[in-house]
Amino acid sequence: MPMAVDAENFYSERAKKMRASEIRELLKLTQEKDIISFAGGLPNPLTFPVEELKEITRKVLEEHGSMALQYGTTEGYIKFREAIAARMKRWGVNCTAENVIITGGSQEALDLISKVFLDPGDYVIVGAPSYLGGLNAFRAFEANMITVPLDENGMRMDLLEEKLKEARKKGLRVKFIYTIPTFQNPAGVTLNEERRRCMIDLAEEYDVLVVEDNPYGELRYEGDDVNAVKAYDNDGRVIYLGTFSKILAPGLRMAFMIADDPLYRKIIIAKQSEDLCTATFNQYVAYEFMKNGLLDKHIQSIIKMYSVKRRIMLDSLDEYFPKDAWWSRPKGGMFCWAVLPEKVNTVKIFPKALKKKVAYIVGSAFFANGGGENTMRLNFTHPTDELIVEGVKRLSEVIKEELKG
Amino acid sequence: MPMAVDAENFYSERAKKMRASEIRELLKLTQEKDIISFAGGLPNPLTFPVEELKEITRKVLEEHGSMALQYGTTEGYIKFREAIAARMKRWGVNCTAENVIITGGSQEALDLISKVFLDPGDYVIVGAPSYLGGLNAFRAFEANMITVPLDENGMRMDLLEEKLKEARKKGLRVKFIYTIPTFQNPAGVTLNEERRRCMIDLAEEYDVLVVEDNPYGELRYEGDDVNAVKAYDNDGRVIYLGTFSKILAPGLRMAFMIADDPLYRKIIIAKQSEDLCTATFNQYVAYEFMKNGLLDKHIQSIIKMYSVKRRIMLDSLDEYFPKDAWWSRPKGGMFCWAVLPEKVNTVKIFPKALKKKVAYIVGSAFFANGGGENTMRLNFTHPTDELIVEGVKRLSEVIKEELKG
Repeated sequence: MPMAVDAENFYSERAKKMRASEIRELLKLTQEKDIISFAGGLPNPLTFPVEELKEITRKVLEEHGSMALQYGTTEGYIKFREAIAARMKRWGVNCTAENVIITGGSQEALDLISKVFLDPGDYVIVGAPSYLGGLNAFRAFEANMITVPLDENGMRMDLLEEKLKEARKKGLRVKFIYTIPTFQNPAGVTLNEERRRCMIDLAEEYDVLVVEDNPYGELRYEGDDVNAVKAYDNDGRVIYLGTFSKILAPGLRMAFMIADDPLYRKIIIAKQSEDLCTATFNQYVAYEFMKNGLLDKHIQSIIKMYSVKRRIMLDSLDEYFPKDAWWSRPKGGMFCWAVLPEKVNTVKIFPKALKKKVAYIVGSAFFANGGGENTMRLNFTHPTDELIVEGVKRLSEVIKEELKG
Repeated sequence: MPMAVDAENFYSERAKKMRASEIRELLKLTQEKDIISFAGGLPNPLTFPVEELKEITRKVLEEHGSMALQYGTTEGYIKFREAIAARMKRWGVNCTAENVIITGGSQEALDLISKVFLDPGDYVIVGAPSYLGGLNAFRAFEANMITVPLDENGMRMDLLEEKLKEARKKGLRVKFIYTIPTFQNPAGVTLNEERRRCMIDLAEEYDVLVVEDNPYGELRYEGDDVNAVKAYDNDGRVIYLGTFSKILAPGLRMAFMIADDPLYRKIIIAKQSEDLCTATFNQYVAYEFMKNGLLDKHIQSIIKMYSVKRRIMLDSLDEYFPKDAWWSRPKGGMFCWAVLPEKVNTVKIFPKALKKKVAYIVGSAFFANGGGENTMRLNFTHPTDELIVEGVKRLSEVIKEELKG
């Protein structure tokens, strides 16, 4: 090819600002075979219900081949949506199939929400830290972020109120609060019930929407279920996101949104031009998996595996990590969050950790407006039990050396 | 729910302009069981390779379960991309897996292209008529359209040049030409080779990109294959879209883009925040289907069925349609396009057609800037052979009545 077209002439303003994720580059380094990786956010493939899916895919093709392989409606397969709506009762949410939109993973839901609600220069309130994929979806539509610190009970409501007040004073257009209230990614903490109610009160008072992202809620290893933030929604301002990626298999890209009219109708229109519909076949497969009671049984088996791994990680951290570090003690989900003494910069020690064949995600990636240089996210669902112990041990050595130096 | 949130306060500018598709509303009316529908653009479900997919899904789960059910890379499954790159040779395109991006249907590709290239007020050049899903993707990102009429050899290059010249004079930011060069949707016509070369010359001269959408190219019922427009690309300004929706099954939502750097890298970054990756499982299934030579065999069986249906539709149109109507004689694809005498308004006669239990798509929907009131799109792949004859007969009666009236 003699010459490349001058691409900069063609990019949209939003595309000009898009940068390759540094985290993705770091993640590539962690994929060598002999590295113990606490990076990534992958379910353990041993949990994938391969045998059940063999039977279910056969059944779906046998009984529904001509429907399951055809285009479907933008909203999604009606029986699947009914089953999802019924399941929402366990989180205190009353809804029907007419509130459910099937999406190709929750990331598509975050993209659709950004498309429908965000103009350049609009603001989104996010946790400090918060899920990187969410931040990137909002950034892709040129939004700015206002960050609210978390503590061991999730997003701090006193600081949320402060930020909302300040934004109102400055005349900033805040469109929504983005929250991962249960077993938060990356921090592993859970917003308590009082704060959930408070978040709704503040959202109403300051007239902003709430986007509630709940990929981990089904993976609870101790304690009692909490209602969704959407359970306290009085006027359809909460959009709830759920997914089958962590409780069935991410490779099916199967997730859903719960929304009320008129937001629901608008999101459907946006989805029409985004991808027409989510893979019909995968919807039939996920529905069959739910229908036969397999899902609940399967979730129990995942919980059994992951709760052991969490225990091992917490025990290892207790045993090996420096005593002046803090880490979350998640009651569910996939991540521990560690806050190290301020002098430890986790970007700086990353190459040293790699040299010891252990990897994590640098915490600063999850802070939309900077900060968190002394933090790291540790995934405990993917490594084997033995490697969790060994990995934490090695990581502790790296940190302790840095503290000494 | 006592009150609904005031949604208009929250919508983005682009969302405020999104309207529910009138066509979708019309399509709903055509879905009653006793209506002979030439509307829609559905493959015939009898072509779906149900038995083969039973074996392939089993094999994929058996042999690749832990990979096929896990998250994949944003670019897509490497073996699948290699197979697609190799297949592009039949359209005269030299590329490697490093040029292939797997997408969830071509609609996602159109959405990604819009996101990466279109600012509000930018211009896209489209055929008059052109694919509605393309127009809607561009509109969703607030682009304007410049329309170029087609004739029986596809988009008219003299008029394309005129429009490009005019746009340059006015200082309009034209980002790309959107073309469906082979068996166009909706017109059924094919851009001849001379015009393909000419399109590239004009794109270079006026420095615009070309988005080549080729969902139907594999479904040729007569004549010889033509090179892709991308085959003549000198500097990576053509982005090519292909799909498995029409040659395998749309319910898998499996499609791909071919692009060169630097556009390729930018599109990947945009896709990261759009949906992380396309369904891994479906990629493995489509790859296995390609690998075993099943795809080519299967395409032959589709061609066998559809070419009969096309013949029946053309024969029926010859026999029943008014002689002063014109219709395309597509050598492949899924659609015939009819241009009726000017006094026949296809929106106006639509309810009359429905009363006679026959449906089509009103042609005006495919004209981005108005026009085409006397046109209609007729799908011939979905109805049974017998119903094609009966449907054209009924439709002819409606039109002839209107001509008399």
